[in-house]
Amino acid sequence: MPQLTLGLDIGGTNIKAVLLDEAGRVRHRARWKTAAMGAGHGAILARLEDAIRGALARRGLADRDLAGIGLACAGLVRADAGRLERVPNFPHWEGLALGPWLAERFACPTALANDVNALAWGEWRLGAGRGTRHLVCLALGTGVGGGLVLDGRLYTGRDGLGAELGHLVVDARGRRCPCGNRGCLEAYAGARAITLAARRALARRRPGHRALAARLGGAEPGPAALDRAARAGDRLARALWDEAGRALGVAVASYVNIFAPDRIVIAGGVSRAGRLLLDPARAEARARLMDPAAQRLDLRLRALGDDGAAVGAALLARESRP
Amino acid sequence: MPQLTLGLDIGGTNIKAVLLDEAGRVRHRARWKTAAMGAGHGAILARLEDAIRGALARRGLADRDLAGIGLACAGLVRADAGRLERVPNFPHWEGLALGPWLAERFACPTALANDVNALAWGEWRLGAGRGTRHLVCLALGTGVGGGLVLDGRLYTGRDGLGAELGHLVVDARGRRCPCGNRGCLEAYAGARAITLAARRALARRRPGHRALAARLGGAEPGPAALDRAARAGDRLARALWDEAGRALGVAVASYVNIFAPDRIVIAGGVSRAGRLLLDPARAEARARLMDPAAQRLDLRLRALGDDGAAVGAALLARESRP
Repeated sequence: MPQLTLGLDIGGTNIKAVLLDEAGRVRHRARWKTAAMGAGHGAILARLEDAIRGALARRGLADRDLAGIGLACAGLVRADAGRLERVPNFPHWEGLALGPWLAERFACPTALANDVNALAWGEWRLGAGRGTRHLVCLALGTGVGGGLVLDGRLYTGRDGLGAELGHLVVDARGRRCPCGNRGCLEAYAGARAITLAARRALARRRPGHRALAARLGGAEPGPAALDRAARAGDRLARALWDEAGRALGVAVASYVNIFAPDRIVIAGGVSRAGRLLLDPARAEARARLMDPAAQRLDLRLRALGDDGAAVGAALLARESRP
Repeated sequence: MPQLTLGLDIGGTNIKAVLLDEAGRVRHRARWKTAAMGAGHGAILARLEDAIRGALARRGLADRDLAGIGLACAGLVRADAGRLERVPNFPHWEGLALGPWLAERFACPTALANDVNALAWGEWRLGAGRGTRHLVCLALGTGVGGGLVLDGRLYTGRDGLGAELGHLVVDARGRRCPCGNRGCLEAYAGARAITLAARRALARRRPGHRALAARLGGAEPGPAALDRAARAGDRLARALWDEAGRALGVAVASYVNIFAPDRIVIAGGVSRAGRLLLDPARAEARARLMDPAAQRLDLRLRALGDDGAAVGAALLARESRP
């Protein structure tokens, strides 16, 4: 009996691979540059197959050891057809029916999901969402993605277009969002938005701008740098995290009212800021909720780190076995 | 074989009853004053039983003709226990385990649901939501309630506290909501909020205030009066509907991004305003959505009129048969 399931998280820069055992432990990891797969559909498929076989061989494994392959991909996917639909960050992959093709080449079940949907499933089954029935997952990356596990099932909506939780409006008259809307959560709590807000704060000489500029020393004021600055006591950096956290808290209050979830999990690279982000988010959400919702608020950080989407995809593939 | 299912919609003022046949047609209607049932639990139960038996008898029907009894109630209900939990408008009903009690007295299955959840189910099965898989339903009454049918199932969240779709924040810095939050949809699109906004517009002498005041002739500037005034060409009344509709549109855009529903149905008394409300809501939502979501936007009015919740409750009872 094959015991291992492969999970791939296909992003614009990297493809992250995990091999999951039956107990849900990550036994092996690999990482490839997405660009190294080439640009034509034929090349991508052939090189991806080679990469997977190479990774298996280096660990003394063969095709027959695979119980399934799960694929997570940023963008819009057709889970039922196993096809990438719209992937803005690496458009030459668009239209690839990766699922059926890998199923044939490796003679095993495959599953395809949007990366944050897969992440939500991974966290729900093995991470910070374990034991819940209704889970809302927000992934604060460059933008803000979402995943919903409702009544113990992944909810993706019509044509898989749902759970775009970063495009909840938190302020109708607020900041422009790249999606064309105004005041979306993503325009406050995504890495791109946080960086923009920091640049603006420096340019507009907000209180503390000199100290922060000195600390940054010309570096991009992205979440990682702002995290370090805030932990070192920088006032403006703390204020910027407070603003991002407050906007997150407004969204959290709305999500509690809409879903009455058992828990809300915050994932994505921006979540590394931890309490810098979560403390103001909790305070804002609690101020906006009535009891018992305010008291029961369960907002916490991801548990699977950067593996979440790959692990979730592997689980989806394993569970798709007939 | 019993052919008829009773649906009751228990509100603070009236109890609306419908008798539904197997084809889903409303065969009979009745209406009782909620206050006429008395205040003590014993009195309420006895009088409600009498009222139901009386209504059956007047139509030549007996207990054995009932295939089930469905109950819809404003407020928080425990569907699993058939018990009213929190009913702010008629608190002396709180704690009543109406479901089990009616099941015993009439020897038939019963089901209990929050009124807007029941309404969403009714519209989904027999009304404006027919043929969809994912339906979002907003009921614009005094406040704003919600109901969700996701993947063909009623979603109610933890302890039935979910689908409070009127408490989505549309403007973080906006109007105070009776729930304690700020900027909720309910604070813009519920009847109470629309009336308040109209009073404020008159008091602050907004352009057109003289004409509207003259038209109202001292009457309360509620949705019905504003509807008549706007249809008669009143400029301020139209502006007020436009503002309510725009806020609704912001929420609709968020709900499209969150759920990717097949359709959004607008119900409740305020929905009688029809296009006065829906035209600005559609325009605002479309401006905030990208294609294909903007093009596909399917926002429409309820089809079951004021019967929706009672019909939905009857259907839930009928479907709960083993």
